[in-house]
Amino acid sequence: MNAQKKFEKIIKKNDSLVCLGLDPDLQKFPSHLQQSEDAIFEFNKSMIDATHDLVATYKPNIAFYEAYGIEGLKQLKKTIEYIKKSYPEIPVLLDMKRGDIGNTASKYAIAAFEYWDADAITVYPYLGYDAVKPFLEYKDRLVILLIKTSNPDSSMFQDMEAGGEPFYMAMAKKISKWPEDNISIFVGATYPEELKKMRKLFPNKFFLSAGFGAQSGQIEKAVRAGVDKNGGGIVFNASRSILYASSGKDFAQGAREEAGKLRDEINKYR
Amino acid sequence: MNAQKKFEKIIKKNDSLVCLGLDPDLQKFPSHLQQSEDAIFEFNKSMIDATHDLVATYKPNIAFYEAYGIEGLKQLKKTIEYIKKSYPEIPVLLDMKRGDIGNTASKYAIAAFEYWDADAITVYPYLGYDAVKPFLEYKDRLVILLIKTSNPDSSMFQDMEAGGEPFYMAMAKKISKWPEDNISIFVGATYPEELKKMRKLFPNKFFLSAGFGAQSGQIEKAVRAGVDKNGGGIVFNASRSILYASSGKDFAQGAREEAGKLRDEINKYR
Repeated sequence: MNAQKKFEKIIKKNDSLVCLGLDPDLQKFPSHLQQSEDAIFEFNKSMIDATHDLVATYKPNIAFYEAYGIEGLKQLKKTIEYIKKSYPEIPVLLDMKRGDIGNTASKYAIAAFEYWDADAITVYPYLGYDAVKPFLEYKDRLVILLIKTSNPDSSMFQDMEAGGEPFYMAMAKKISKWPEDNISIFVGATYPEELKKMRKLFPNKFFLSAGFGAQSGQIEKAVRAGVDKNGGGIVFNASRSILYASSGKDFAQGAREEAGKLRDEINKYR
Repeated sequence: MNAQKKFEKIIKKNDSLVCLGLDPDLQKFPSHLQQSEDAIFEFNKSMIDATHDLVATYKPNIAFYEAYGIEGLKQLKKTIEYIKKSYPEIPVLLDMKRGDIGNTASKYAIAAFEYWDADAITVYPYLGYDAVKPFLEYKDRLVILLIKTSNPDSSMFQDMEAGGEPFYMAMAKKISKWPEDNISIFVGATYPEELKKMRKLFPNKFFLSAGFGAQSGQIEKAVRAGVDKNGGGIVFNASRSILYASSGKDFAQGAREEAGKLRDEINKYR
């Protein structure tokens, strides 16, 4: 089954557009977990077991594992293997934000799709088509191109005027001509107007979005802007607000409640 | 000692602007090495021992290690530790091409400068200042911003017209106003005109360049375009042409000869 179908199926089954970002931060873990040798894996496993019927995908951001070095990456490996074994219907979206010239990009693609076995990954398109192609050659996986990021300074370069429109838009228009079916689009949920424009340009592509805060108003705007004509075709990431909803022994239950609340809030506007 | 000074010192001592890219590819290794459990480290060690008086820096591209998974990254760790212990005067330039929003960028910065202990790394500036700042906070390390890449399709987005000039130039002009001293610049050696413009905009910054082929004419153009007013301030990467100069038992000697030839060829035009 190709990755886009896998996403569509679980979105329907769990009636959810929630992407849970598995971004571990040992200092925020419940104290009873902090001593464990496999603390990160055990924390992730608790999160996964508590939310597997409420989310559409798990998105580990590899930076949070690389910060703990090779030991951290071992925890990521165990986490991905656990999802694949216990909940094979849930796609793994590995947030790597990679990008390099052709020969090197093909090495990153091996890492992403063969070693980590991710269903989808994030990639910078800034280097041009020849640098993205090695990823796109894995036709059953999704390559999510970072078009417009969620951070405050994203306008600095991404909104620079390029031939009468913002740079990110000019870039997106060229990308819309690329022939591959397994292209996917990232736009920050903090920019609902831009998200709306991208949905118009890519009506049938799968989208990833992230970065909305706690305010319901922001969620409404982003969801209405981002869903496809069937009210799906996109997932919205949340990390800390779910992972660290409770810091006590009930941390998994706290996460489950937050994930459920976010699912329901998003579903109001689909 | 800050990283830029470390580069300047070794450039002078070894009279070299050569950056040796440690990009291991097991299939290209001499056959007697391929069976070893630590083949990548042993290959790298041979390269380092054979060239330490001829180069200015070693640049492992982490993609080539990630492709071998956690085992590959262990070989990278051993390689960096070996350089730091045996040749502490030679800076380690870790080519990671990372970039993410603030909170996540700070995790990549921990990985780069604390776990891997790199003297310099490569970073995408495309997300804006707030995404680069967590790297720049390591004031004794160099943050090499990818302005114009060496691949054929780099013109697709990087040369898009933005306010009457190419996008990469408009981006670079904004970056030139950033206050930090530890900013460094990457421009592909395949684009000597662009390299020349960037040297003019950043007369005192340290540069990394890469991608010139075997033709002497290309080397001459890139070197003349990239050096600072003292004939230094830049390193030029070569990987495969040195690493795999010979595939026999004399592979280290073959690499030494190629590195020496490249050093001398570059020095003709400084």
